[in-house]
Amino acid sequence: MKKLSFLFLLLQASLFAAAQQSFQGSGPVFSPEIHGDNTVTFRIAAPQAGKVQIMSDFLPTQKYPTPFGEIDGPGMADLAKKENGVWEYTTPQALTPELYSYAFIVDGVRVNDPANVHMVRDIGVVSNVFLIGGGQADLYKVDDVPHGTVSRIWYHSPALGLERRMTVYTPAGYETRDERYPVLYLLHGIGGDEEGWITSGRAAQIMDNLIAQGKARPMIVVMPNGNAALEAAPGETSTGYTIPTLFLPKTMEGSFETAFPEIVEFIDRAYRTKADKRHRAIAGLSMGGFHSLHISKQYPDMFDYVGLFSASIMPDPKVKSPIYDDFDRKLDRQFAKHPALYWIGIGRSDFLYQINADFRKKLDARGYKYVYFENDGGHVWRNWRIYLSTFASQLF
Amino acid sequence: MKKLSFLFLLLQASLFAAAQQSFQGSGPVFSPEIHGDNTVTFRIAAPQAGKVQIMSDFLPTQKYPTPFGEIDGPGMADLAKKENGVWEYTTPQALTPELYSYAFIVDGVRVNDPANVHMVRDIGVVSNVFLIGGGQADLYKVDDVPHGTVSRIWYHSPALGLERRMTVYTPAGYETRDERYPVLYLLHGIGGDEEGWITSGRAAQIMDNLIAQGKARPMIVVMPNGNAALEAAPGETSTGYTIPTLFLPKTMEGSFETAFPEIVEFIDRAYRTKADKRHRAIAGLSMGGFHSLHISKQYPDMFDYVGLFSASIMPDPKVKSPIYDDFDRKLDRQFAKHPALYWIGIGRSDFLYQINADFRKKLDARGYKYVYFENDGGHVWRNWRIYLSTFASQLF
Repeated sequence: MKKLSFLFLLLQASLFAAAQQSFQGSGPVFSPEIHGDNTVTFRIAAPQAGKVQIMSDFLPTQKYPTPFGEIDGPGMADLAKKENGVWEYTTPQALTPELYSYAFIVDGVRVNDPANVHMVRDIGVVSNVFLIGGGQADLYKVDDVPHGTVSRIWYHSPALGLERRMTVYTPAGYETRDERYPVLYLLHGIGGDEEGWITSGRAAQIMDNLIAQGKARPMIVVMPNGNAALEAAPGETSTGYTIPTLFLPKTMEGSFETAFPEIVEFIDRAYRTKADKRHRAIAGLSMGGFHSLHISKQYPDMFDYVGLFSASIMPDPKVKSPIYDDFDRKLDRQFAKHPALYWIGIGRSDFLYQINADFRKKLDARGYKYVYFENDGGHVWRNWRIYLSTFASQLF
Repeated sequence: MKKLSFLFLLLQASLFAAAQQSFQGSGPVFSPEIHGDNTVTFRIAAPQAGKVQIMSDFLPTQKYPTPFGEIDGPGMADLAKKENGVWEYTTPQALTPELYSYAFIVDGVRVNDPANVHMVRDIGVVSNVFLIGGGQADLYKVDDVPHGTVSRIWYHSPALGLERRMTVYTPAGYETRDERYPVLYLLHGIGGDEEGWITSGRAAQIMDNLIAQGKARPMIVVMPNGNAALEAAPGETSTGYTIPTLFLPKTMEGSFETAFPEIVEFIDRAYRTKADKRHRAIAGLSMGGFHSLHISKQYPDMFDYVGLFSASIMPDPKVKSPIYDDFDRKLDRQFAKHPALYWIGIGRSDFLYQINADFRKKLDARGYKYVYFENDGGHVWRNWRIYLSTFASQLF
């Protein structure tokens, strides 16, 4: 009988073998440590390192050189070497409520925090995450409220000639009730995929919390893959563990928009939806805002609610697709039907700010009604989470 | 118009800002590179590092010291420094087909491969993964076959007083057909959670491929969280981004087994199941095998198929629960009802080998029919994927 307890301990030990390797005698490291006052300490055991930095969106933005000029990116700070080869950094002030992401740079190598298993892939970059609760950020928590279901489901696309994957959120109770629900189609940006809104975007937590607070109606949220040449997110396709890339074929050239009614038909067949315009919304970030704009004006009887989050507006003039023909005439036709909500959100430092201002001028000149939401910041998930929360509260 | 194209490029650049940081002038690094002959090259840019190693299950197992003695763990090999500060290792031979996991150790710090976004968390350790196709390992691929849906769904547990999360696989076509399906309940090991079988276990790919090949019947696979004190996997609960741990309360002390009928009732309500013993199977690895053994004998009219994968058998004698009382009498009652399949799988170097041999002796002595599967290797996912593939092919 004593033998059994020993085996149990041995099992426990074996499961930690790989993990222990990383401690290299320095003992387990706790990181990030969120203190009671919302300052945060980050730690990494790196006894042989000469320099360790942290790179995060809680630090002041800094400039990065790119082939296209300098652009804003996450700030950086130095960690200090402590006992046992553990490096440490504590924020000088309390962090404001937010879902933050970070990575360490150890002697020039960008690495994830070995003590923090919580990571999110955004396109081709994996970062650790942590959450400072309070205010808006409480919407991003898995709170003690009824939870919806998140499904990865495949549909057949005759138009694109592919089996394709999407992420679908159904509100709490969907499986055990008989109700029908309205549907929000929620689209990702360039280089993104059907995982973006549910991971970086915290869409399930935002919807769970808004619905529980009575601030949004129970709804289905459909997050398809907006890259018309792809089956699914990297690693989830028959091409294997591919490298995420921004340079995808068949993107923003009309294919996805043309094929979109297939997705709506599939959802109306596979789920208990309220299958009419009055109960359908479409929204997206960046390229997804562009898709939402062009899909909603191409099919003016499909969506009564449209959300453009930091949206790209006009197609590349070199691209030829019937989708992009007659922009103004299609817009006229769409607005003649008085959409229940046409919502535009953008940050003041977003590089797409001006083209959104231009688009608003066009809408204003034609006397078209829309709701405009402007805030600080740029082309980042922090803003898109705010836009989703705000937009979803105004639906149906 | 030219301005728009520039904005498009700028958008692309901004999305790569964080990633570029990691290259530090060495240019993008491609890793792992799987060559045509199934040798593999691993690379990491670490110009300032003094030593870089790879730790992986494709390398010969090595011994690790633990407080409980030496145990087997992943092997290690040195990378060599090449041009531009990029370190490289190429396997001397072709790798045999398998889903492999690995990490780098840079100057003593265990880090994930910055060039490979494909990672899997196993309990508290995150490793990169790659797949060498062929043979059994082809079952682990996302292949060009119809795909089932994978859902994370919550249920209310009155017995445990929690909202709890589980992962559910429904076979391709579930949403658009009217059929009812048999159900396999598939349980994880100690420290694991409802994510283990779908990530490390490749359960969705195995089921998709077996079903497409006609080797398994279409079935629902339910993967609950076997830790009775927990709502869900780390980071998916109302306690926030917690640290995975093996030292959980209410584990292997009867609570999970006692509450199990709630899960079956919920599944039969939420899904189109064939809700009888003949169409229910239960299987699990290690602690999950222990759970499968004790649940199936506690409720002898619930499951006609039982699978013990590298299972723990007997409870800790210090634990008191009615679940573990009358072991032999309950086993007699279960086998008197002639289960359609009682399946035991274990590896020859598994540290639980002997206690499984003892259990088989007991079954033999009583003349109870079971199917026994023995293979090389130990207490690892490589074996559990084989056991799932083999077991699922024999169900219903």
